[in-house]
Parts: sequence; C-alpha cells; structure tokens
Amino acid sequence: MSPVYLDNNATTATDAEVIAAMLPWFTERYGNPSSSHAFGATAAEGVRLARRQVQSLLGAAHDHEVVFTSGGTESNNTAILSALDSQPGRTEIVTTAVEHPAVLALAAHLEKTRGVTVHTVGVDGEGRLDLDDFERALGPRTALVSIMWANNETGTLFPVAALARQAHAAGALFHTDAVQAVGRVPMRLRDTEIDMLSLSGHKLHGPKGIGALYVRKGVPFRPLMRGGRQERGRRGGTENVPGIVGLGAAADLAARYLETERGWIEDLRDRLEQGVLSRIGHCHVLGDLDHRLANTACIAFDYVDADALLLMLDRAGIAASSGSACASGTMEPSHVLRAMRVPVGAIRGAIRFSLSRDTGGADIDRVLDVLPDIVGRLRTQSPLWRDRVPTFA
Amino acid sequence: MSPVYLDNNATTATDAEVIAAMLPWFTERYGNPSSSHAFGATAAEGVRLARRQVQSLLGAAHDHEVVFTSGGTESNNTAILSALDSQPGRTEIVTTAVEHPAVLALAAHLEKTRGVTVHTVGVDGEGRLDLDDFERALGPRTALVSIMWANNETGTLFPVAALARQAHAAGALFHTDAVQAVGRVPMRLRDTEIDMLSLSGHKLHGPKGIGALYVRKGVPFRPLMRGGRQERGRRGGTENVPGIVGLGAAADLAARYLETERGWIEDLRDRLEQGVLSRIGHCHVLGDLDHRLANTACIAFDYVDADALLLMLDRAGIAASSGSACASGTMEPSHVLRAMRVPVGAIRGAIRFSLSRDTGGADIDRVLDVLPDIVGRLRTQSPLWRDRVPTFA
Repeated sequence: MSPVYLDNNATTATDAEVIAAMLPWFTERYGNPSSSHAFGATAAEGVRLARRQVQSLLGAAHDHEVVFTSGGTESNNTAILSALDSQPGRTEIVTTAVEHPAVLALAAHLEKTRGVTVHTVGVDGEGRLDLDDFERALGPRTALVSIMWANNETGTLFPVAALARQAHAAGALFHTDAVQAVGRVPMRLRDTEIDMLSLSGHKLHGPKGIGALYVRKGVPFRPLMRGGRQERGRRGGTENVPGIVGLGAAADLAARYLETERGWIEDLRDRLEQGVLSRIGHCHVLGDLDHRLANTACIAFDYVDADALLLMLDRAGIAASSGSACASGTMEPSHVLRAMRVPVGAIRGAIRFSLSRDTGGADIDRVLDVLPDIVGRLRTQSPLWRDRVPTFA
Repeated sequence: MSPVYLDNNATTATDAEVIAAMLPWFTERYGNPSSSHAFGATAAEGVRLARRQVQSLLGAAHDHEVVFTSGGTESNNTAILSALDSQPGRTEIVTTAVEHPAVLALAAHLEKTRGVTVHTVGVDGEGRLDLDDFERALGPRTALVSIMWANNETGTLFPVAALARQAHAAGALFHTDAVQAVGRVPMRLRDTEIDMLSLSGHKLHGPKGIGALYVRKGVPFRPLMRGGRQERGRRGGTENVPGIVGLGAAADLAARYLETERGWIEDLRDRLEQGVLSRIGHCHVLGDLDHRLANTACIAFDYVDADALLLMLDRAGIAASSGSACASGTMEPSHVLRAMRVPVGAIRGAIRFSLSRDTGGADIDRVLDVLPDIVGRLRTQSPLWRDRVPTFA
C-alpha cells in the first residue's frame, strides 16, 4: 500500500511538471545569468520568465518587486533586518505569538542583542488576532509589522490587507510571512498596502532551497547578503537558475489550481474532519473555522499523546505532524496552541493533517479507517481516559 | 557545431550523475528532514550521507563541521559576520585586494556602517600576496583574516595553510573563500589551522543554489539566518535536500577527478596558452604561473578590447569571460588585474578561459582555429595597433 502523505504544510512533493521545467537548466542551459555570452543570456532569460510567473501569482504590479532568495527563512530574516536597518529612528517590531520560528527566533535575538522592542500580539481561543492589542502595539517607533498570512499549524488566516493599512497609518512597514498562503489563497498584492511578503517554493510543489521576497516598489531595502549585483543589488550570489525556473513553473501550476481544485481539497479536508468527529469521541477541530486554509485540519484528541499517535500513524503508513516541522525535536508543546490557550490536555493530543492537490479520497479513507482504532488503543493505555477528565472546561 | 564552454569559473554544467542522484529527492523522497515520520527520516538520511561526502572531499575531521548554505556568497557573508559578532573586542578584518565581491562588498559595507577597519593586502604583478603587508596588517584587534584559496580570474593559489597559522599567531580567526579551489585542488583541512571555508556547488559540477561553510569544531559561530534548529542551529530554514544530495554527489565525483583527471586538464590549458602565444603576438599569460589552478588561463591581448573579443568569440560559439561574472555589467576594469598593476592596455584586452573535466581537445582546437583571425581583425581596427605602443614597459 502506498504511503499517505498529509504533511503538506511541512513540505510538498515537487510537481512532475516543475521537475520537467527545471531539468534543461541543469544541463544544456547551465550558464551563469551574469555572464555576457550566449549561455549567460539564456540563463538570464529563464530567470526573467520565472520572475513574471511569480509576479503573476502574487498579483504584483512589477516583476522587479520579486527578489529570489533561498527560501522562507531567508525572506523573513531579510524583511525584518531590512526594515530595521533602513529606518534607524524606528526600533520596534510588532508581530504575533503564533508566527513561525523564522520570525520569532530572529525577533527574540534582536531584542536581546540590538535593543529592539518586540510587541507580540496575542490571539483568542480560535487563533484570531486580538485587534485591540494590535492597535495598542503600534506606535511612532514601529519599524515593521510582521504578521503571517496563514498559520502553519491551524491554517487560520489573518486579515493582512487590513492590518497593512493600520500599520501604514502608524507610519510602519508591513511584512507578511505568506509561505503557507501563496498558492493556496488568491492574492492581488497590487491592490493591497503590503510592503513585503515571504514565500517558499517547496510549500507549493516547487523545489526546496528557493523562495522569494516580494518588495513593493519604493519600499526602502537593505540586502541580507552582499556580493555581486544580482537581483538589482538586493541579493548577492549566483542565481539558482533551475530552482528559480522551478519556482516559476510551480507558481504557474498554483495559479491554475487556485481556479479549479481548491474547493475539491476543502471538501476532502471537511470529509476528514467530519469523519473523525463522527467516529471518535472527545476530539476538537482547532483554529478559526470560518477563516482558514482549505487544506489544513488541526485536530486535538483528548487523552492521547500526539507523539505516540503520530508514531502509530507512521507505522500505518500515514504521515502527519504535531506543530511545525521546524520546531520538531524540541519536544516543546506547540507555541501556537499555547498562545490560543488551548487546554494542555488538548495540546498534548493535537495533530495537524495538511492536504495538497496530490491528496485523494482514498488517502482520507485510509486515515478514517485506521485512526479510530489507534486512538482507542492509546486511550485504553491512558489513566486520564479512565477518569475522563474533560480538557475543555 | 556544438558550442565551446570555457567559462567554468563562472559556473559549470551539472554532472549527469549529480542530476540522477538528485531526482528521487524531488519526487518519492520529498520529506522535510525535520519531520518525525518516515518521509522525514528518509530525507534526513540523504542529508547525512551528503554531509559525509563533503567532509571527505574537504578532509575535515568531523561531518558536523559542514554547514549547508545557499552558496558561496552566503557562506562568505556568514563567516565574516560570525567572526565579528562572536568576538566583540575585535573589530578589524584582514583581506586582499583580489577577493571576490562576496567578500569585498560586505567588507566595504561593514567599514561604512559598523566602524569595522578593513586591511586590504596587496599583490604583486603575478598576483602573489604581499606577505610583509599581510604581517603588518595583523594585530590584536583582528577578528578575521579572509583570504581566497584560488583567485577566480587568474587561478593564482594563495598559501592558505601558512596564512592561517599566521592569523592564529595573532589570535585571529582564518576564513578562506575556496569556491574556485574545492574540487580542483586536494584538501585536508584536518591538517590545517583553517577555521572556516566557503564552497559552492555550481563551481564543481553540482547544482546552483547550494553551498557549504566549513566551520572547524570549537570555532565560535553566529548564524546569519535564524529560524528553525536545522544544521544544529547554525542555519535556519528547511534543508534544500535535493541540492544537498547533489552537492554530496558532486563532491564524490570531484574526489575521483582529483585523483585522475587534473593533469589532463592542465595539459589542455597549457596547450591553449602555448597555442595562443605561438600564433598571436603581443599577448601575455597573467597570474602566478607556478602556483595556480590547473584549469584557468588568463591571457591579455594588447591592442584589443576584451568586450569586443568576447562578443566575436561568442558569435563563433565560444564562451569565455573577462573578470568575474558577478561583476559583469559593471563595465569596470577587473579589480584583480588592477591590484596586480597590470598595465591598463593589457587589462583592457584580458580574457579568462576556464576549463573543466567537460573540456576536450577539440574545444581547444576550435579556440586556436578562430582566435588568431578575430584578434587580427580587431587589431586592424585599433589606432593603438597602428602605433604599437607597448603595454608592458
């Protein structure tokens, strides 16, 4: 039986069309885009086309607003440091308690080493941003607001267009970590006030090791890496041409998917959630059910340890996750669910299933087949289950 | 007629074996190495093997001394910033006038914005380092010496092992930008005092967008990018698994090449140089002819404009270059040849041919066939040629 992969928020399989698009750029079209000869010109043309494909997916006004990077973490780090370095009078950052480590770890480091003040806006029990808290956090010294478009653990969507307007009203720049949103929700950045946006190829069936930072025309910018004059001087280093071409192809495919397949994935996700809720007692779907990604289901199973559950699912050939892959191995309970004040008992048993356009009905059926039995077995081993202490008051 | 590619110091074609090694990691083995399920474990195993392959090529003592990055520029930037940030009392850098922009541009920026003092050691007419100047530049405030292993334009090799010892005697760390040397000269870092070393996949028939920074065990380190705990907390961001696997495979191939093919490339390079010198008057081979890469020929043609020469070579299907591809489009004469005090007339007509294991005798014959005629035609158009003003006094 082929394995069931429901961890697409950690990474996706590279689409066969993406690989086919990349291959010639490893072999006959292997030039360095900065070279003046024919090999170089060909490579530069590949980069140019891919930049337009990413521009189109984002609905950006100009292709040069797309700066290719090595991925989401580099894009996030670049955006935050650039905003601080280009606005010396502003030394505060506003972000949220549920961001990815690529934002939170850097923010904590800057707080410790550079005297940056970080305002961390909280969320409610469904993962929705505390808008009053956000409003209060903004001030004349805010350099940057950095708020994710979609949360990686619950899929909860934040109202980034409105938040960007509020940030601008306070004179601050607005950045969004959109690695989970790009290719999953339609975007038209030209109609927003978003200044910077991070995306990652491998979250949208593109290759790993490539991403982009959208930087709106006119937004002050400082490079993270200095060297050659690639990317209009905004990112030194020989362009990863096959990766860039692959990201462009993935953007094209994602645009098609957004028009046709998104509803189908949502149906599969709902079938999974409803199937779980109807077959298994004492479990809860977490997140903002009215505003979330179509592909993400975060389900808490009371009286179950998520690590044990994941292990048994893995043995049954089903890949899912708890929390962010980037935080795996830390053994700390999810900072996202803690910020939502999900009861500890429920956090302990919370699992994320994340679907993609590769997911089929048979995958969902497999999960629904094996999950009730696995949860049941784990619960019979738990003293908490015998007492049935409710996790949600 | 298939084109002749003699610009391998700008970038190399990805080896077919490297591509074959990478492909499964885009498709069936696409997991995120940080994930705890089987997909993740498989991906982590691929990264582990590649790290050992790179370790082996470098002759490093420990596999964890290899930190994967997005390429040479990121590695160089990381090394320099890490050395400064981890040694707050030391605010000086010693480097050379002939480094790559990935070192010089960052150094200039740090000098301007952070009050870092940069000592730029000069070279002589053959590109050899001024060792007295180097000795004088070292001091109690030197944080880092950053000196390339092999120059990208002339192929000149620097005595990095000896320089590292001198740096240590002054209490400074030693970093080498070895993107042109790794895979081209044998290395055994465990027997040296080199603290950090940068390498880039696409210079050794690996993919673009992947590289590594060697960081000797125990050397203080600060990450350039913060996020997840990948690379033992030294480089946040989902690992570029196919790129890393490709770099590992390229390292394996390079190790084999170093044992068998290097002499053959040197023979081809010498045949090119001797053929040019015997067929075309008023030209000079630049660099340290006794200590240089086997694959690089930097030849200055008096009374010729290099850009015109490259254009005509390109039209004849031959790709070569002037200066670093990373500096192309700047229209500035090579900073390397200027540092060597090569006469302006010779700099103006200097061309780099860089060979690889893909180069064959037929490629060299093609160059020797067409070059005399092209140089002759360009010279007849030059007023300098009519007067024959000597470029070298």
